[in-house]
Formats: sequence, C-alpha cells, structure tokens
Amino acid sequence: AMVWRLAPRWPVWLFPWRAACTPGAFVQQRTWAGATRSPSWGRLHGVAGVSPLVRRGSSSTSSQAPEVVLTCERYPVRRLPFSTVSEEDLATFERIIPRRVITDPEELEASNVDWLRTMRGCSKVLLKPRTSEEVSHILRYCHERNLAVNTQGGNTGLVGGSVPVFDEIILSTALMNQVVSFQDISGILVCQAGCILEELSRYVEERDFIMPLDLGAKGSCHIGGNLATNAGGLRFLRYGSLHGTVLGLEVVLADGTVLNCLTSLRKDNTGYDLKQLFIGSEGTLGVITAVSILCPPKPRAVNVAFLGCPGFAEVLQTFSTCKRMLGEILSAYEFMDAECMQLVRHHLHLASPVQESPFYVLVETSGSRVEHDAEKLSSFLEHALGSGLVTDGTLATDQGKIKMLWALRERITEALTRDGYVYKYDISLPVDRLYDLVTDLRARLGSQAKHVVGYGHLGDGNLHLNVTAEAFSPSLLGDLEPYVYEWTAGQRGSVSAEHGVGFKKQSVLGYSKPPEALRLMQQLKTLLDPKGILNPYKTLPTRA
Amino acid sequence: AMVWRLAPRWPVWLFPWRAACTPGAFVQQRTWAGATRSPSWGRLHGVAGVSPLVRRGSSSTSSQAPEVVLTCERYPVRRLPFSTVSEEDLATFERIIPRRVITDPEELEASNVDWLRTMRGCSKVLLKPRTSEEVSHILRYCHERNLAVNTQGGNTGLVGGSVPVFDEIILSTALMNQVVSFQDISGILVCQAGCILEELSRYVEERDFIMPLDLGAKGSCHIGGNLATNAGGLRFLRYGSLHGTVLGLEVVLADGTVLNCLTSLRKDNTGYDLKQLFIGSEGTLGVITAVSILCPPKPRAVNVAFLGCPGFAEVLQTFSTCKRMLGEILSAYEFMDAECMQLVRHHLHLASPVQESPFYVLVETSGSRVEHDAEKLSSFLEHALGSGLVTDGTLATDQGKIKMLWALRERITEALTRDGYVYKYDISLPVDRLYDLVTDLRARLGSQAKHVVGYGHLGDGNLHLNVTAEAFSPSLLGDLEPYVYEWTAGQRGSVSAEHGVGFKKQSVLGYSKPPEALRLMQQLKTLLDPKGILNPYKTLPTRA
Repeated sequence: AMVWRLAPRWPVWLFPWRAACTPGAFVQQRTWAGATRSPSWGRLHGVAGVSPLVRRGSSSTSSQAPEVVLTCERYPVRRLPFSTVSEEDLATFERIIPRRVITDPEELEASNVDWLRTMRGCSKVLLKPRTSEEVSHILRYCHERNLAVNTQGGNTGLVGGSVPVFDEIILSTALMNQVVSFQDISGILVCQAGCILEELSRYVEERDFIMPLDLGAKGSCHIGGNLATNAGGLRFLRYGSLHGTVLGLEVVLADGTVLNCLTSLRKDNTGYDLKQLFIGSEGTLGVITAVSILCPPKPRAVNVAFLGCPGFAEVLQTFSTCKRMLGEILSAYEFMDAECMQLVRHHLHLASPVQESPFYVLVETSGSRVEHDAEKLSSFLEHALGSGLVTDGTLATDQGKIKMLWALRERITEALTRDGYVYKYDISLPVDRLYDLVTDLRARLGSQAKHVVGYGHLGDGNLHLNVTAEAFSPSLLGDLEPYVYEWTAGQRGSVSAEHGVGFKKQSVLGYSKPPEALRLMQQLKTLLDPKGILNPYKTLPTRA
Repeated sequence: AMVWRLAPRWPVWLFPWRAACTPGAFVQQRTWAGATRSPSWGRLHGVAGVSPLVRRGSSSTSSQAPEVVLTCERYPVRRLPFSTVSEEDLATFERIIPRRVITDPEELEASNVDWLRTMRGCSKVLLKPRTSEEVSHILRYCHERNLAVNTQGGNTGLVGGSVPVFDEIILSTALMNQVVSFQDISGILVCQAGCILEELSRYVEERDFIMPLDLGAKGSCHIGGNLATNAGGLRFLRYGSLHGTVLGLEVVLADGTVLNCLTSLRKDNTGYDLKQLFIGSEGTLGVITAVSILCPPKPRAVNVAFLGCPGFAEVLQTFSTCKRMLGEILSAYEFMDAECMQLVRHHLHLASPVQESPFYVLVETSGSRVEHDAEKLSSFLEHALGSGLVTDGTLATDQGKIKMLWALRERITEALTRDGYVYKYDISLPVDRLYDLVTDLRARLGSQAKHVVGYGHLGDGNLHLNVTAEAFSPSLLGDLEPYVYEWTAGQRGSVSAEHGVGFKKQSVLGYSKPPEALRLMQQLKTLLDPKGILNPYKTLPTRA
C-alpha cells in the first residue's frame, strides 16, 4: 500500500486543530452530530439574518449601511399600469389578516432592500398570511383590483427577485412556517412554504433524515423560496434537483385559485406534472404555499477532505478519481482558486488548512457505515497524493472541524462583499472548460479589477465567477458584459446556473434559451397570470 | 455475531444453483458484467418484441392470436372532426421522407394494435422520420391540414396510449435511433428519441456508466417513449424520477416549431424549465425528438437477495431495516405475494428459490467496493433472519443468478397474461396501507376472480394490483371499479403510479387530481396544441 507521504509537510501552525490529525489517525471514525455544518447568514449577521452590512430594524443611514439607491432610479424600468394601494385596500387586507398588515416604514425597509443591497423597492405594505386560504383571499382581491404582488421568503436571493421594483405589495411567507406532517418510513416531509431551511433540517435530522438541499443562506431562506428559485446548493451533486425530490406543491394562482397538488407519493402519473411549472418560476406563475418533499436518510458518517491541487487539470482528474473511488458516498465536490483563499484570509481571518496551492478542493463523503467510508476515503487520498493530483491535504471527521473546512468555501460570498463592489456571475459550463473563463477574464480585465475569482460546485459544472473593484464602474461592466455571456453561450452553457433570473438577469436569457423557448415561457405567463400581477418586472424579458 | 441460521433449511432441490451458495460463501465477491439482468419482452417474444401472443409480420388471425376488436367498436368514443389522409397527403409525406411512408396493411398491423392486444386503431399510414427537421415538416403539414397524429415509440405501453384510436397518422420514432454524444467525465448522454433503452444501456455500460432507468420492456421501448410516459421502473428507488435525471429535451410542437432545450448542463435556471412539461405528457403536448440524460457511474458490485417474509408487516420492517443497514447501496426493493409466485411457477415453470412464504422480497445493492457491499449485506441478512423479519433467503452475486432472481419478479406480467383476462391497476399508496387493498379486494371478489395478486416497487410505494379471470366480465368489472379507485382516493393515493393515463385511464384522473388541476392541464393542452391533433383521445378527460 501507498504511504501517506504528505503528512510531514502539514503546516500545523496554520490551523491549530490540524495537530489532532496525526498521520496514523488520518481516517477517524466519527458520527454525524445533527448540527448544521456551516455558519449561516442568519446566525452570522444577527436578527433577521438578511444582510452583512445593515442592522435590520435600525436606521438604514448608519455609516456602515449607505443608502441603497431606488431600483427605479438606478435602472431604466417603467412602472406598469397597476393600481396603487389605497386606504380601502388596506382596510380589506386588515379584514382578511387582522393585525398582520404591516405599513410601518422601518419594518418595511428590511423587505424593500435585497441582501446584496443593490436593489430598493418602495412598497408601502407588507402582508403576513398564515394559511393558503388567506393567500387565496389576498390574491383574489389583488387580481380584481389589479394590484401587483411580490412574494417574499427569506429575502436571500442574489438577482433581485425577492424585493419589489416599485410599490408592489410584499406578500411574506414568514408566518406560514408550520410542519404539516412527516412520515417516518418514507422520509416524506409536508410543510408550509415559509419554514426556514435550517429549521427543517433540524426537524428531520432529529428523525434520522436530512433535507435533500443545503445552502449558505439556510439560516434565513424559506423552503418555498428555495423551490420558487429552484435552489441548487451543496447537496445537489448527491441528491439531485428539486424537480426530482419535490413530490407535491400547493400553489395559489394569480386569481386566487388554490391548486392542490400536495401529494406525498413518489410516483404519480395522473396527467401533466403541474408542480414542475412552479419550481424555478420565481413567484411569477403562482405563490407556493406548501411543499411535500422527499428527505434522504441521515448518513451515519460524514467526512470532509480539504485538498490543494497544483492546477485545474488536476482538479478535474481528482474529481474523476473521486467518482470512481468514492462512488455512492461522494456527497460534495467543491473547488476554489488561490484568490478566493486570499480573500477569506484577508477579510474573514480564516487560515488555510493546507499549503498554498493554485487550487483547493473540498470533498465530502456521506455514508451509512463509518469504517467503510474511512477505508474508501483513505484509499482515495493515498491514490490522489501518490499520483500527484493533490499536493497537500487535511481531513476532518468531527463536526467542529468539518464546519471549519466548509466555512472556507461557504463564506467566500461574504468575503467578496467586503472586498468592494462585486460583479457576480453564476454559470454552468462543460467541466473541462469551466476555469478557462476565469483565466481569460483575468487577462482581459488586467488592473481594472481588484480580484477575478472562480469557485463553485465543480461536480455540477457550476462556476461562481466574481469580479471585485473599488466601486461600480460602467467601463468595467462594459468589459464584462456581454463578453461573459457570449463566452458562455459559445460553450452552450447557462448564464444562470442556480441563482436564477430575478430582476437582474432577464435581459440575458437569450444567451441560453432560443426564441421559441422564450415565446413559450411568455405564453405560459400569460396563461397563468393574464394581468401580470405576480412578481412583475422579473424572470422574463420585459414585453415590448 | 449472529449465526446465519437459515442455511440448513435451504431447499436446494428447487433451484440447482443454490447449492453453490454455501453458508460460508454466502456473501461472495462479484463484478458487474455489463449485461442486462433480465429477459426483455423483445428477446422473449421474437422479432418486433411487442406481443407475446402474436407473431408480427404474419397473419393476425392465427389460432394463437385472436382478432383484436377495434377500439372504436369496443369503447364509446367518437371520432373528432380531423381531416382524413388523402392521396395528396401521402404524396406530400413521400416528398418529406422518401420511401419511409408505410401503407402496407401487414406492416401497419403491428403499429395499430397495442402490446396487451386490447386496443386496435385503423390508421392507414405510418411515417418514419429520421431527423427533427423531418418531424417538424410533417407536423407543420398535419397542423395546416388538421390531420391527427399518434406518436409511437416501442409500443410497449399498458394503457393504450401508444396506438391510434381511429385513423390517426402513426409517427414512429424507430429510425431516430442515433446517439449524438456522450461525455466521459460527467456521464451525460445525448441521443435521439428512438434509441432503444437496452441498446443505450449497453452503450453507456461499455463506457462505465448505466442508464438511470431500467424496466421490463427495455428490449423494445424507446427512450423518447420512456420520457413521454415518465417511466418509473426498477432503478427509480435509487436514481429517482426522470424529472430529475433528464437534463434537456428537443421537442417538436404541434405546429412544427422545433423547441430546442437540449442542454447538457446539470444546472440551468434561465427561465421556466420547459422540458418538464413534456415529461409524462404522453405525446399530447409535443413530439420528443432528442434527449439529454445524466447517467450514473456503473456500480462495481451488484448483489441480489431474494427473501421470504412471514407477513406484510415484516415486508415493511425489512424495508426500514434495509434502508438503515444498506444505506446508499440499496438499489431496489421489490415485493411479490404468494399468488404471484404460484403464477410464475405454473405458467413459466420458474421455481421458487426459497421456502414457500406469504410474501417475497427482492433486495438489490449496487456499490463501488465489492467487499464493503458484501459486509453490509451480510450484516443486514443476519439481522433480518435473527429477528424473524425474514424466514428464508438466498443471495446471488453473479450475473446469471441475479438474472434468474430478477426474472421471478420481472416476468409476473407475462405469467398474468397467460392466466386469462387481466384487470390491471397500477397504484401509489402510503406504504403501510399498500397491501390492504389486495386483501380487501380478495375478500370482495371471492370466487369471481381466478387470482387477485399484489406485487411491485414497494420502495416507491407502488403497487401493481392485478386480477385475473377466465374472460372479461362486466359484472366483475363493476365490482372492481370504481371500488379500487375510491379506495385509492380515500388514501390520497394515485390511480396511475407509473403506467400513465393513455386511453384507458383518462376517466379516472379525477380520483387523484382536483378539478383545478384538470382545468389547468386542459388549458396547457389548448395552449400547446390548439387544434388537438397530437395523440387525441388520450391523457385528458375528453372535452364535453
């Protein structure tokens, strides 16, 4: 057998807990402890967990939180001829949901501004229904009155889909937060749309299951919002798309019709699978009010290896090796480049657990038998090091260390936000061309950019490409767009892999979808929401 | 450790190869040999592989193949006012696809009659396009001329969805059978819709991957038909729904528009996920012409255990135990009752490999490391036997024996067909109530039925309920329906789990879907196929 050659070179001083990982104990048994593995936005940033830069509920004009420009002033967008909310409308809402009609400007502020603080709506009212019947009453009324509605979950979206553009009524799912049922044999969870992902995780983990999705925003995001945006995230590689794991939905349509497709069956071929329409439609076709979702059994062993790779070719080969040698226990394969590591070190004071490398990968395994997983992982690591695919590495087998390793990857978004103005791209590409875009862009931008970084869910072909600069610059933007989109289209990639379209990406859909598809999307929108009151100005290119 | 108490009781004489499975060698190492594990309909029944009772291409009036009554004579259905195919139409088709316009009555026979020999259309022409452009030309012409079109893949459907009801033009995908591309790193296959599932399986297995679906009809069925019917099958438990594994589709719409959503990306959130509309729409919304699908890596070890259980409660507990102890390597959990075993023994002369039991389960594992899988399976079997959940069992670790065990489960359909007239129901139910329906029905029908049997994909909550009788009887039918549907609706189950709706189940959709859902389905049909030329009389309840 191959010797674990790397051990003597571990830079123990960089990461105090590394000392515990002696070569002999490299593969340790551990048990999944039920807690979440990464700091969530919610827990990191206080009360509402919505922004790293502003304390919600306090004045938004503090020095730490510069005023966010109104969306309708920053972008060339025109208000559509919806009605304006009147005193009579407010009185009607108050009758439907007494004491849950919010008009206080301070409370509204948190819902008018997005997490990235790049968009600001001027909604005058926030509604907090508790049931689908209440949502139905509200929408029936808004439909009759021609009032526009912006459904909002945890407001953690990155493309401006979750906040109003003008004065749309904000319909919050925050109080629709009840678990309806959980089946112990099958792992099928039925819950309301406003349940927070992390709370659902905790709930099902207590019952020996896990949620089939996990993402950085878990402490704030709502399951309804996850579905509406077809969230991808960290478990996608293993458990697949929500289009496969969601079993049923309850949706309220634009005219108030309650569409009950909330079955708890794994198989149901009775007609068209209507729920699929609403997964990823960003609240523009209906309001998701309840969800039935299949939860996988909780793995008994979880291990995370954090590795340094000498080049991107080795990142790819390590992935192929992982798939072959770890097989069914591989649950995540994430990568980040050296500049990402510099940013988390500089802004968040997180130290690298391995020697400086051009690339880093995080490999997670989840399995049902501790010693089998340890053996598989050990064989893989020996092979990866022995063949030079990996030049340094560390392994975590207990919850605390696993969280620290995941933090390096999950907190990149936060580090970027602290670096300056961030141009964000979320792209799907064939894996073998994935990093070429970052390299090309770095050469193209030169000193215009502070940082050009690439990281993401390599296992899913999903690149998060981010460019930072001291401040917003139209000329830098001009160098970025349409270049990034054309480059992506040239590879038949997707210009929005998992973040969605929202307000910010509607004009670039055409890079990934042909005109016939855009036309059919528009027809579906017209069929389901003929007055266009649901989340207007979002998802589809604005009508001529 | 527990002793493998069962070994001495193995009835070795029943199953010659059992002798090889000595207790000490109970768990043996084996390698996946790449071949398919079960006899397919195609290979069992000759040339076209479509029917066990008729030799295709020969006269249909032989004594073995009684004439099938015309659908329009057997069922109260009225022809809609479509045009009738004229000589001029045939000449046009001949220009679009020279020498691939079939009007020979004998050749048409195989496409006018369904596999179960319960439906017969009277189409006068069969078209065999090779490309989506040809399909587009054909549909544009049919749309203008108001000609109805029945798309047909392998014609293996069980609900009459694949054959014409009247004189609809049959559009066969048989010549659209080319693989377009395969990506070795990601396992993404792109191919035309007419590729036969078994041939695709062979193709990807040679490249160290497997198809994410497998079903009894694999020797004949087309991947396009699998998608159009949202096929479930034997790998569903492990690899999930086609809604999750299909990455892209190319579809020709009713008016001839080619909708190219044939991306090869795992993540793509650029607008509504249009491909989902067509998965499971049974050719009524568009014609699927090409497919992009994600293939899982080929497991290096496959094992099958066939077990006898003393009761249905033990079948359920064994399933829970499996999920806990086999975890990520569990790839199938099928069950069949004692009457199923009697039928395969009587009609197909297959012997039971275990002692007679009220229930049998087939457990399959697929994993990446032979010895780990063997250990997991061994622990599970010791526990299951030690705790009395299982009273007898056998294990197969090589390809030949695995095929024999799978044949017991996969050939039940065939054995039923030989038993007489078969009333078929394909139902999803909460697993804990799954078998109650069989028991209730057996009591209700008494001596009216020859056999009332239950089997299926227990891991998916999917019951195949079949009732046999000497001949069709309206009074027996009256005792079965609506009883079975009402019973299912009472449990919030699905009246069509995986077989679909087709022609036969359209009137019962309402048992599983609310009126609001049926209305929206109808609206989608009208949007996508305003003249209703695609697969008319199918899927949706006939319009008033």
